[in-house]
Amino acid sequence: MSTDPLVVFTPSGKRGNFPVGTPILTAARQLGVDLDSVCGGRGICAKCQITPSYGEFPKHGVTVSDGALSDWNKVEQRYKDKRGLTEGRRLGCQATVQGDVVIDVPPESQVHRQVVRKAATARDITMDPATHLYFVEVQEPDMHEPTGDLERLERALREQWGIDHITADLTILSRLQPVLRKGKWQVTVALHKSHKDSAHKVLEIWPGLTEDRIYGLAIDLGSTTIAAHLCDLRNGEVKASSGVMNPQIRFGEDLMSRVSYAMMNPGGDKEMTNAVRMAINGLTEAIATEAGIRPFQILETVFVCNPVMHHLLLGIDPVELGQAPFALTTSESLELNARDLDLTVMNENAQVYILPCIAGHVGADCAAVALSEEPGKSEDLVLVVDVGTNAEILLGNTSRVLACSSPTGPAFEGAQISSGQRAAPGAIERIEINPETKEPRFQVIGSDLWSDEDGFSAAIATTGITGICGSGIIEAVAEMRMAGLLDESGLIGSAEQTGTARNIPEGRTHSYLIHDASAEGGPRITVTQGDIRAIQLAKSALYAGARLLMDEMGVDRVDRVVLAGAFGAHISTKHAMVLGMIPDAPLDKVSSAGNAAGTGARIALCNIAARSEIEQVVHQITKVETAIEPRFQEHFVAASAIPHKTDPFPDLASIVTLPTVSFNTGGDSDRPGRKRRRRA
Amino acid sequence: MSTDPLVVFTPSGKRGNFPVGTPILTAARQLGVDLDSVCGGRGICAKCQITPSYGEFPKHGVTVSDGALSDWNKVEQRYKDKRGLTEGRRLGCQATVQGDVVIDVPPESQVHRQVVRKAATARDITMDPATHLYFVEVQEPDMHEPTGDLERLERALREQWGIDHITADLTILSRLQPVLRKGKWQVTVALHKSHKDSAHKVLEIWPGLTEDRIYGLAIDLGSTTIAAHLCDLRNGEVKASSGVMNPQIRFGEDLMSRVSYAMMNPGGDKEMTNAVRMAINGLTEAIATEAGIRPFQILETVFVCNPVMHHLLLGIDPVELGQAPFALTTSESLELNARDLDLTVMNENAQVYILPCIAGHVGADCAAVALSEEPGKSEDLVLVVDVGTNAEILLGNTSRVLACSSPTGPAFEGAQISSGQRAAPGAIERIEINPETKEPRFQVIGSDLWSDEDGFSAAIATTGITGICGSGIIEAVAEMRMAGLLDESGLIGSAEQTGTARNIPEGRTHSYLIHDASAEGGPRITVTQGDIRAIQLAKSALYAGARLLMDEMGVDRVDRVVLAGAFGAHISTKHAMVLGMIPDAPLDKVSSAGNAAGTGARIALCNIAARSEIEQVVHQITKVETAIEPRFQEHFVAASAIPHKTDPFPDLASIVTLPTVSFNTGGDSDRPGRKRRRRA
Repeated sequence: MSTDPLVVFTPSGKRGNFPVGTPILTAARQLGVDLDSVCGGRGICAKCQITPSYGEFPKHGVTVSDGALSDWNKVEQRYKDKRGLTEGRRLGCQATVQGDVVIDVPPESQVHRQVVRKAATARDITMDPATHLYFVEVQEPDMHEPTGDLERLERALREQWGIDHITADLTILSRLQPVLRKGKWQVTVALHKSHKDSAHKVLEIWPGLTEDRIYGLAIDLGSTTIAAHLCDLRNGEVKASSGVMNPQIRFGEDLMSRVSYAMMNPGGDKEMTNAVRMAINGLTEAIATEAGIRPFQILETVFVCNPVMHHLLLGIDPVELGQAPFALTTSESLELNARDLDLTVMNENAQVYILPCIAGHVGADCAAVALSEEPGKSEDLVLVVDVGTNAEILLGNTSRVLACSSPTGPAFEGAQISSGQRAAPGAIERIEINPETKEPRFQVIGSDLWSDEDGFSAAIATTGITGICGSGIIEAVAEMRMAGLLDESGLIGSAEQTGTARNIPEGRTHSYLIHDASAEGGPRITVTQGDIRAIQLAKSALYAGARLLMDEMGVDRVDRVVLAGAFGAHISTKHAMVLGMIPDAPLDKVSSAGNAAGTGARIALCNIAARSEIEQVVHQITKVETAIEPRFQEHFVAASAIPHKTDPFPDLASIVTLPTVSFNTGGDSDRPGRKRRRRA
Repeated sequence: MSTDPLVVFTPSGKRGNFPVGTPILTAARQLGVDLDSVCGGRGICAKCQITPSYGEFPKHGVTVSDGALSDWNKVEQRYKDKRGLTEGRRLGCQATVQGDVVIDVPPESQVHRQVVRKAATARDITMDPATHLYFVEVQEPDMHEPTGDLERLERALREQWGIDHITADLTILSRLQPVLRKGKWQVTVALHKSHKDSAHKVLEIWPGLTEDRIYGLAIDLGSTTIAAHLCDLRNGEVKASSGVMNPQIRFGEDLMSRVSYAMMNPGGDKEMTNAVRMAINGLTEAIATEAGIRPFQILETVFVCNPVMHHLLLGIDPVELGQAPFALTTSESLELNARDLDLTVMNENAQVYILPCIAGHVGADCAAVALSEEPGKSEDLVLVVDVGTNAEILLGNTSRVLACSSPTGPAFEGAQISSGQRAAPGAIERIEINPETKEPRFQVIGSDLWSDEDGFSAAIATTGITGICGSGIIEAVAEMRMAGLLDESGLIGSAEQTGTARNIPEGRTHSYLIHDASAEGGPRITVTQGDIRAIQLAKSALYAGARLLMDEMGVDRVDRVVLAGAFGAHISTKHAMVLGMIPDAPLDKVSSAGNAAGTGARIALCNIAARSEIEQVVHQITKVETAIEPRFQEHFVAASAIPHKTDPFPDLASIVTLPTVSFNTGGDSDRPGRKRRRRA
């Protein structure tokens, strides 16, 4: 048995014997205990703070005496006097082992600490980002042993951090000499390590030990909206989340109309590329301002997007994606310089990672959903549906995963809806309709009060009630169906048929009035027959895609459904099933995952092993092409009814009884089928 | 013993037995015979042409019958009918082995064929450039097995050429899809392989089998001139050579004045960076036009330059190079994209390689001289002197190599000389002065006739006689010394003292008149006392640098001297020694190497193994810093005399007897020493 003192680390439980005088940081490193350090043990960064525990520890079989750690040395004392240290804390690089001791590593001293996602699913992200900060002392130049400053920086990183080889762009080279001299040969460098090779690239350099934190952006680049999370690259914390409309909308609402625009207008692809890049620059500026950081602190960006957005972001004409065989220019993941994408607001050396695409219609956003929701690790058969202008659909379990995309259009995002708007303060996001009185009550973003509760008017005074967002329109249509205001075919009944004056005529159809502020000059918020048709088209496409995957898998039911949405909005699972967006399933087996694509982007931003993982996973996914599959059309038509024309929904029926109403009065009907025939 | 037919290749002598039906190209590859192919054996590029020999070959122990090769197949016959084939030639990929055969591989079918350098030294460059062309057939996309076009190109290169991994910039990705379709899934790609890692980068892509050749630029970026060679990357042939003045001259004649400009003028370094990059763009345009190629065919560029030019090219403020300890930002070689240097005339994906620097004052140009002249492989002690505005000096043998640089100023390049000009038609490049009559005769660039030969006037009628270039001024001063027009201290005698009316007074000094066309409105070409002083300063700096290395090596004499010049001009070795530019040595041991730095750049352009080699070699060179060495100043003062004040020149004395004259008449002298004292 060793006579050296025993050191036990908590919470890891790792333990080992170390000679008297061993710094705690050294002991931690030798045992593989996760204890941070930026300054490399010089007692200046204080990232290695630890809490020694004293007394009896029967669990560990240790008694810790008062003298178990060395007395405070000058470096540690100076740090405490100057910067302050929490009571009971010591600097792990300065305090040395003198006797058996139990050392607790607080969460903020752990590099790879786990961060709980804000979204519904409780999976954690282990922090292991591509970019880290390193403080080094660089040897001064010696005329008689001439080497470049970069080579001496490289040597310092090798000797002090075990990093073998570095590269640096001209932007760094042009600043290296003044920064080294300003920092008196002490600098902090941000090094980016690719998961594809072993090179480390210098992204930024600061004189001395920087106070700056470094950040990354996880961007879900959708057809309709661009959503970004700004994450602290040290701990994964989301400092700000923000979104903007995709300005490409002016070239076409959905993907195929944008591909058409590129085909019909020479240079049209370049216009769209420029528009989306400028929007990302604006979003970067806005999110940095919101978080109170400087944009140059953003050193990494991860993109997830569908194939058409992918090509337009990269500056590639998407024309091939508009026609069979839907060939991608490249399907593998990409590592780029942000400046190659004209993303000039963030740091000039910021690195971009774009997740791999799965197929010509199944993009990096679907890969991100797969990374976030991991259907391939599920024991039961799970259907994952990511609702956006294009829906990404995954079906699978540990034995096999299928994927497709389905062109739902932007209705679920509140676009092409008469009172639709993006999810912002003032938008109706939840709604209930009393089945007896047919009266609605609702919540708007910005307040937790229902519209019939006291104080509601005051609470929403500043924002007003401005429209309906994506999750609001889903609830509204489902509630109308449950309240008997809407029949199975999607027809809104008249005031006479439904017994409520809120069903008002509009031409040959009817609308349901949710809120009328027109007397005060505000909007009149209704759900029109056109809105119902838009939602029907969207939900039919979604359901048909899911059914196609189920056919391919040879199943009629799934065990579990995960609903994810582009905005991270919490789509009501019950309402989604009433609408028939998703196949029938026990309601407690339907969960909402928030913005799964955005979460996948965050995972890839915070953990490079996840990048390697998803690059492998996409190769194992079976792609199903909806665009050329005749059964897709059949499924689509049958899914037009609410919830469905032919498929039984037994689980739904067990919790909700849908009124058996029919508002078809013959010639006045506006069923899509008839309409199509009349127009033909 | 194998019963398979024997195939013997000449000139390599490689031999092996192959089954009947084996294509000759396959046999060549299996034996490692250097036989080219771009199309990968499809019978369309015809790079694999071979010549079968028939009859008795006792030397090889083979008898070749008429049927030793297969009959012409359709592919081969079609090629011959359409494009033509030299009599006796076959396509190595189509003709198959039928019996014992002797196959000659003509030089143009060899990839690594050796090319004799144009310059004086006879060393060969083995062609193994970083960039090659590859023709491939790419599989068409399949909707049911979705992969990106890039991934299928990668697979084609792996299967058809054994190339493992490729990368492509966005500029290539944005063109990949239309080019693949235009070429009907056959394309030629230019792939660049770094010697530092195993990645291949797509630089250019053409539909089908391209007729385009690809080129590289070897650029010697000097303080005064920028000289470029355009080389065919297939065979190393120099298609054009061109040069321009370095426009940075307007910011300062020599390196230290440019560093001063950067220090005194905020943004001055950026101005100089921009100026030199624009000049290189202009030079690229000009050299492409001269060679009749399109600039996008230039896919690689190699730079050699001194450290200050190196930093200014890269966009790095050279201020640290102006003060001890003369720290470089980086000393290692660099691989860059040409566009990162704003070199936008050549191909947008062109790759740049910059040789490593040796020390703060000893640059990539010196490394290039070391690569070209290889002092470290010399058995005898060789002094290599590269004459430019800054001289690069190497001294060494197989045991040790020393290097330094010496600030000679631009006089040797014809600058700061009253009648000086760059080496261009009309410039006097050779001169002789009759020691009896003191009359000169000379040659000008553009004619091989001497000025006293019949037809001279007619020959130079279009250019005229416009000035003196660098090699001309060296000969002029040496000839003046040999003719007794100039004394050891560098003083030009009066007409009375020298007995020639060509020595004409100018203020308190005298000039020697070489040519007077002022009557016809032409120039009056003289060598002034100021010119002599400029040459004295330059040659003293050169000699002092060489002596410093000899001190360091502990020798008084060198075995051999190699004189190299920035223009590739042939400096007369005898005149150089009369001037005392170089230490005394037997004249047959003094050779001229032309533009050794430019040759080094060409070697690095044409052979990537040379890049690895020089990166190793520079680490083994001992650098000597002239700027802070007191002995340098002593050597400099002593070297002011022509040829030298104290050092004996016995070898020179054995071939030239210098007149013992002295034109110092006391108060009127203009010796530098006196002058300095007077000004103090």
